[in-house]
Amino acid sequence: MKPISIGIDIGGTNTKYGIADREGNILASNSIPTTNYPDPKVFVKAMHQAITDMIADCGEEVELLGIGIGAPNANYYTGTIEEAPNLSWKGVVPLVKYFEEYFPHASVVITNDANAAAIGEMIYGGAKGMRDFCVITLGTGVGSGFVVNGGLVYGHDGFAGEFGHVIAVPGGRLCTCGRRGCVETYGSARGVVLSVQEELAGTTSPSKLRSIAPEDMTPKDVFLAAESGDVIAQHAFEATGKVLGESLANLVAFTSPEAIFFFGGVAKAGKWILEPIERHLKQNLLNIYQKNMVKLIPSYLPESDAAILGASSLVWKEVDHMPSQARSTSSA
Amino acid sequence: MKPISIGIDIGGTNTKYGIADREGNILASNSIPTTNYPDPKVFVKAMHQAITDMIADCGEEVELLGIGIGAPNANYYTGTIEEAPNLSWKGVVPLVKYFEEYFPHASVVITNDANAAAIGEMIYGGAKGMRDFCVITLGTGVGSGFVVNGGLVYGHDGFAGEFGHVIAVPGGRLCTCGRRGCVETYGSARGVVLSVQEELAGTTSPSKLRSIAPEDMTPKDVFLAAESGDVIAQHAFEATGKVLGESLANLVAFTSPEAIFFFGGVAKAGKWILEPIERHLKQNLLNIYQKNMVKLIPSYLPESDAAILGASSLVWKEVDHMPSQARSTSSA
Repeated sequence: MKPISIGIDIGGTNTKYGIADREGNILASNSIPTTNYPDPKVFVKAMHQAITDMIADCGEEVELLGIGIGAPNANYYTGTIEEAPNLSWKGVVPLVKYFEEYFPHASVVITNDANAAAIGEMIYGGAKGMRDFCVITLGTGVGSGFVVNGGLVYGHDGFAGEFGHVIAVPGGRLCTCGRRGCVETYGSARGVVLSVQEELAGTTSPSKLRSIAPEDMTPKDVFLAAESGDVIAQHAFEATGKVLGESLANLVAFTSPEAIFFFGGVAKAGKWILEPIERHLKQNLLNIYQKNMVKLIPSYLPESDAAILGASSLVWKEVDHMPSQARSTSSA
Repeated sequence: MKPISIGIDIGGTNTKYGIADREGNILASNSIPTTNYPDPKVFVKAMHQAITDMIADCGEEVELLGIGIGAPNANYYTGTIEEAPNLSWKGVVPLVKYFEEYFPHASVVITNDANAAAIGEMIYGGAKGMRDFCVITLGTGVGSGFVVNGGLVYGHDGFAGEFGHVIAVPGGRLCTCGRRGCVETYGSARGVVLSVQEELAGTTSPSKLRSIAPEDMTPKDVFLAAESGDVIAQHAFEATGKVLGESLANLVAFTSPEAIFFFGGVAKAGKWILEPIERHLKQNLLNIYQKNMVKLIPSYLPESDAAILGASSLVWKEVDHMPSQARSTSSA
């Protein structure tokens, strides 16, 4: 029997789930609308049915080792989702407990999506064999997952690794957290669009970005404009890269990672964002970190499967750390 | 035979060394002038003689388990001191190798003094039983040692944990590292004195600090002035605490420690510095960290023995992590 892991990525709108093997092959995947389930217990019941059906239909003899869940405001230690602003489930939801009631023989693990992305990069992606690295997600928000000495950094309360809410510009842009100048207000999709607006307001240069309403504008629009030579778009990425590079120089002074992996919509702008990040990082880096400088690497995980792979990798990470007499992962 | 560890703290002027047991009792201690030994090999030869004599004279039957060394710019992974600006030994000095030649049966460990202070706090001090905490040293410089998941954070290159060189004030005070606005330029002894000068320049208020030349002024002078009601001194600590509190709010977003321990001359100002640090930390802390807020604690290690205790604790940390068949620490 082939050992498998289920990866579940809970988002505000949809929940994606799938079956992955130890090599990161997705045997099957699907999604359900999270918004259809205002009661988390009903959600878990529906997920149990969907997963059971998916395993039965996958056409292989498999052994379910565990379920990994990536979710906003998820706490690894307590197995709960706490006060997630983008979910309709309010308060503290003991989601791991609910899943364990339906899957009593599986190991169930939950953490936030950026931590899941970090473990995914370590198990399946570009961080194989690395013991000190981090993953930065530049998407709707800015998230981060830190691996130190081969283990994820959860902190004493399970909430470590909020690089998006490091204050990069004192007194700067207003953040959804209520404070000002957080990295997220510059490095997220919204941050890039805000930088475009600032560039547009500060110059009379022609730009095709003037024809797109700010609330409709995406990082992809800005990327395509930059590619076609639009100076406003290029300057917006430069401004974004400056804030990210300066903040990452401070990040290096904390954990000195071997590599920083970038994931998410903003990171897909490629050289337009990575080149200014690297330049400003190097300019602001303490001298002792210049020699073996941290590597800046786009995530190896394929965009379409990344959320499921990240979540499913949590299971392999747990299984790999069990004593060998309790569980051998090499035997199928 | 009582198992013992040797702690050596190498400073630019003097090297302190002593014998410690597992409970943190110092059985003997002494010091030699580092500046007398421009050749590190001659230094190690002299240390070997001094340690051998000290063990012979300590009046107990002891078993030397290892030697722990705290030194500036020390690299745990390579066992070297690299380009330390405050030592006369230039280039890369393989100090652990030199010590192992004289002490072939002892485990020899080296790291920087702030990391040694963190392990000292975990083995002998206030961080016993904690798995996620950090120690901040506020002295001639600002140093830091981070413990995550029960282990010290060395980073991929051995140089992690440079909180003193996180940029707190973009474009701010010039640092000895050549950059501007590092935490060290505000939180060190020199940083406090600079804040006093700024306060003195900005007001005509009388202050006994006006009678002390800046290069003669110490944090203790400022502390005594603050105690006696000197408003300039109190404002200088407030300004220092503001920068430290804001920077520590970012630190919490990285590793979310259970506690932050403060050590060094500036920390001895007690409530005058800790109260503003705590207030500005809380004001700048992301909401998810407010509930179980990080504890701010003065170091438990006695000032006079702290350097030797920190260095010697490195040995117990290594020994405690060996397999029990190789070394039992509970048997004397």
